[in-house]
Amino acid sequence: MPEATPIAANDAELALVTYDANGLVPAIVQDAETRAVLMMAWMNAETLRMSLEQGRTVFWSRSRQEVWRKGDTSGDRQFIREAYYDCDGDTLLFLVEQDGGGACHTGNRSCFYRPFGSEAEPAPEYSTAAR
Amino acid sequence: MPEATPIAANDAELALVTYDANGLVPAIVQDAETRAVLMMAWMNAETLRMSLEQGRTVFWSRSRQEVWRKGDTSGDRQFIREAYYDCDGDTLLFLVEQDGGGACHTGNRSCFYRPFGSEAEPAPEYSTAAR
Repeated sequence: MPEATPIAANDAELALVTYDANGLVPAIVQDAETRAVLMMAWMNAETLRMSLEQGRTVFWSRSRQEVWRKGDTSGDRQFIREAYYDCDGDTLLFLVEQDGGGACHTGNRSCFYRPFGSEAEPAPEYSTAAR
Repeated sequence: MPEATPIAANDAELALVTYDANGLVPAIVQDAETRAVLMMAWMNAETLRMSLEQGRTVFWSRSRQEVWRKGDTSGDRQFIREAYYDCDGDTLLFLVEQDGGGACHTGNRSCFYRPFGSEAEPAPEYSTAAR
């Protein structure tokens, strides 16, 4: 089982993160090994702090309006290895060790398994290979 | 100069993309070579269609409320090599050949050049090395 490693963000860094009218910031999740973009979800200030402290991705579920620690139900936990905030502070990026079968509820490794252009060949890390 | 290659998306694929209350969808841009996540910006239905047809990223600038074809002013054009939509159709991913010095208006290659955790060492493709 992968190890959870907290990230020691300081208050000055956290203060640079800006939230939208709903108090949310988009969080991109990238596979630390394959570098595939796995998914995008949303965090609020509380779940960002939880993510960094616990070393696992914790999101705010907009549909369920509740804290959603990725993998607690599915087993597809994400162990954070690096975390970044962007130039404007309005988007986050997490490099993770993806546990379980993949990041996507469809069973695909990445949520981005469908390329535009019917004849397009997806890159290996985005291929539709099931878990 | 990199070549612009249109992506022949069909209407059925485009119909799977969902837009928020403002008619926008987040678009993640990833470097096709280094696999670094370069930036995140927003598209509407019009600029998504323009992006695929022109083979270059075209966003909707929320601050300026106008069509923003990346690089027309800065020279930092993005030539699309692959384009994906996610399982829910509410996030897009573009793998691009980044022209010019980088994707970020700060002069960094990626907008995600600052890791949380003051002692954290960013991955090479996210390092703060200026253009």
